[in-house]
Amino acid sequence: MTLENELQFILAMDALKNVDRRNFNLDESRRENTAEHSWQIVVLAQILYPYAKQKESIDLLRVLRMLSIHDIVEIKAGDTFLFDSKAMVGKYERELEAAKALFGILNNDLGNEFLELWKEFEAEETPDAVFACAVDRIMPFLLNSATSAKSWTEANVKGQMVEEIVGTAVKRASEEMGVLFDSLFEESLKSGKLAL
Amino acid sequence: MTLENELQFILAMDALKNVDRRNFNLDESRRENTAEHSWQIVVLAQILYPYAKQKESIDLLRVLRMLSIHDIVEIKAGDTFLFDSKAMVGKYERELEAAKALFGILNNDLGNEFLELWKEFEAEETPDAVFACAVDRIMPFLLNSATSAKSWTEANVKGQMVEEIVGTAVKRASEEMGVLFDSLFEESLKSGKLAL
Repeated sequence: MTLENELQFILAMDALKNVDRRNFNLDESRRENTAEHSWQIVVLAQILYPYAKQKESIDLLRVLRMLSIHDIVEIKAGDTFLFDSKAMVGKYERELEAAKALFGILNNDLGNEFLELWKEFEAEETPDAVFACAVDRIMPFLLNSATSAKSWTEANVKGQMVEEIVGTAVKRASEEMGVLFDSLFEESLKSGKLAL
Repeated sequence: MTLENELQFILAMDALKNVDRRNFNLDESRRENTAEHSWQIVVLAQILYPYAKQKESIDLLRVLRMLSIHDIVEIKAGDTFLFDSKAMVGKYERELEAAKALFGILNNDLGNEFLELWKEFEAEETPDAVFACAVDRIMPFLLNSATSAKSWTEANVKGQMVEEIVGTAVKRASEEMGVLFDSLFEESLKSGKLAL
């Protein structure tokens, strides 16, 4: 059938709507799923792009593509909580295998391109990946800051970890995002959402 | 606060995760929401772009941006079922008002740019909008074709309407997508998912 591999790929993607993440939506009615998160960071990247440090070296199209596909590995590998250092062990290998299997469904150049974009995101080295990663990390932080931060409090997440894992990535990518992070981080410590 | 409008905008966007669409996810466990749908069409556009008729005139970045933001009006205006001709009356006016209010939160050039992208999508005239619209319309069609098509059968959707509303948009954008549509459309008629 025409576009058979493309059809199988997009149908396989549907399972991402059933992968729950740790953090909650703004109304705290339920945890968000990874498909929703992937959409929200595609939008967030567009509104934060003007503030990226390396804006001139950043290709927004590549950033949006990266962000839209980097989490699909969770269909097979599940969502790994950023602040769970035990679960983070072996994450890359598990996800690489998932990436090969899932992008492999396309069985064409684009499948290989997606795999390379995924690897580039994970390596956090190129200007595109540094910015994309900062956007991906700040989004759940913004949701926690604007809510009762259940995903932090239930796991007793420490401020130091958030500073190291989120703050560092954010500040590497943008001064303005760094200022926003610092301001919301201070508030979260004061209000007791984040343990010291 | 630095990035205050950007923060308010992305938090307002969160409500899109609570807007349910008519069609069901692939596993038919529940209806999909508009945030998930928006993500899925951003991915679908990337895999169908090589097959667009006017590929040389299409700017994929603009298409992805358009697709990621064109449905956010549903936060205020709700999801309107494509095959409900009564509900479609006044849709544009309701959504335009919502678009102005929501993109207005950004209160900057990007907010205006989003509004223009939204209008361009709705007008379905430029190569970018014609392709984006075809991707948006074929996605729920693919999900219905691959499932028991509850959103069609519960509303007694007629094949003729699907051909007029989905088929026409799809064929205008891509020959290969048109062939795929015809093949799945025939199957859906045969299996009784679509009323004649």
